[in-house]
Amino acid sequence: MRPDQPRADLPRADQPRADLPRHRVRVPALSAVMTLGPGEARHLHVLRLRAGDALRVFDGQGTEALATLTELEEARATLHLGEAIETHLETPQPVTLAAALLKGDKLSDVVRAATELGVSAVQLTVTARADAREIGAQKLDRLNRVAQEAAKQSRRNVIPPVLAPVPLGSVPLTGQVFVAQPGSNTRLTDVLDWSAPVTLITGPEGGLTDTEVARLVAGGAHAVTLGPRILRAETAPVALLGAIAALGL
Amino acid sequence: MRPDQPRADLPRADQPRADLPRHRVRVPALSAVMTLGPGEARHLHVLRLRAGDALRVFDGQGTEALATLTELEEARATLHLGEAIETHLETPQPVTLAAALLKGDKLSDVVRAATELGVSAVQLTVTARADAREIGAQKLDRLNRVAQEAAKQSRRNVIPPVLAPVPLGSVPLTGQVFVAQPGSNTRLTDVLDWSAPVTLITGPEGGLTDTEVARLVAGGAHAVTLGPRILRAETAPVALLGAIAALGL
Repeated sequence: MRPDQPRADLPRADQPRADLPRHRVRVPALSAVMTLGPGEARHLHVLRLRAGDALRVFDGQGTEALATLTELEEARATLHLGEAIETHLETPQPVTLAAALLKGDKLSDVVRAATELGVSAVQLTVTARADAREIGAQKLDRLNRVAQEAAKQSRRNVIPPVLAPVPLGSVPLTGQVFVAQPGSNTRLTDVLDWSAPVTLITGPEGGLTDTEVARLVAGGAHAVTLGPRILRAETAPVALLGAIAALGL
Repeated sequence: MRPDQPRADLPRADQPRADLPRHRVRVPALSAVMTLGPGEARHLHVLRLRAGDALRVFDGQGTEALATLTELEEARATLHLGEAIETHLETPQPVTLAAALLKGDKLSDVVRAATELGVSAVQLTVTARADAREIGAQKLDRLNRVAQEAAKQSRRNVIPPVLAPVPLGSVPLTGQVFVAQPGSNTRLTDVLDWSAPVTLITGPEGGLTDTEVARLVAGGAHAVTLGPRILRAETAPVALLGAIAALGL
């Protein structure tokens, strides 16, 4: 089995159900009739939803259902519960971690934690200051097994594939792209929304070079801060995914 | 040297300088005259600051200085730079991690990452589902050395002490207290501000019991989510501190 071709019987994170309403709204609990307050009503207005529109509701505990917006006032919305959607524990949009190759067992630790924190795929990358320029087939297989075990342990029914390394410049910068950059002035909270898939880019030991970061930013990536301290290469992805998880749902 | 008594020549995270202005405002760069836009001006209004007031400015890269607010309009503020404050890489308020005892080397990993992410102290705790009920003096010494090395590596000049375990019920719930709770409806972003010290409480493998969480919440802790997935005991503190670091500054 090639590691970039997961078994056909396992659901893939990159296969969203195209037949579901696009918008997904958090509710305190799923019940037949749900009343939402000013904050949520404003959010529904921002999404340009109207009475009669279908959407998805979820409770943050993995339970999700269809719903119909039956009433939308300035500061109050009423939803009626529809059919349950198969429970899953995925992020609102797929989150890809593009992680630089690291020495030793560090990648296993990153893949394990990233899987727990909900990534839909780990794309390994080769960077200027790379600790390694390639990875053996056996090691890539092992990383995919780590993802499989971590998915099971964290109760996800989606196993993120760990994909063979590509040069950093070949990582597609689609959706919202964030690169962790010590001392950046931008916070993740200032720029993250869940309107599009997310790609997180993290560097090797020694970090990405200024040129690499500048190219990513020129390509549309946001350089975001994780504080003024220097993080090890294996801490940054977990911290960034933790921030995403804390904001996500 | 007892591990809860760090060397006298090392600055302690729990010794804030009492003579500095309380409010701390982020600026793009430190310069003789700094003009801030609507967002920051609003923030200054919220803090009830007035022209003539002293505050601290920082650039998120570890540089900090005194400043005087010379002009505050509705959507614009002007600051004049004062004396530099010794550069340090600490969080705006001390962050204590109260982490349950874990088996094997897991605590080393937690202490190392927590130090990089800026904790001011790690308070070990004994919980109902504890993996261990005590820790040897040698192991505690080792954890303190891990903190010392990690502080150096992350360029902090503050070494967080790792404190001998106390029962979870004895951890003081002062300041803002957060406990990671799968499926909670509260996001860290909804409740965290930097007006007071922060305490993060994380559980052992198997998690805190419902009773333990209920007691913490009754004592004023916020149960916050890191997403609907189950995290390993050693991932949760790093993820939570990552979220704090991403929100901090």
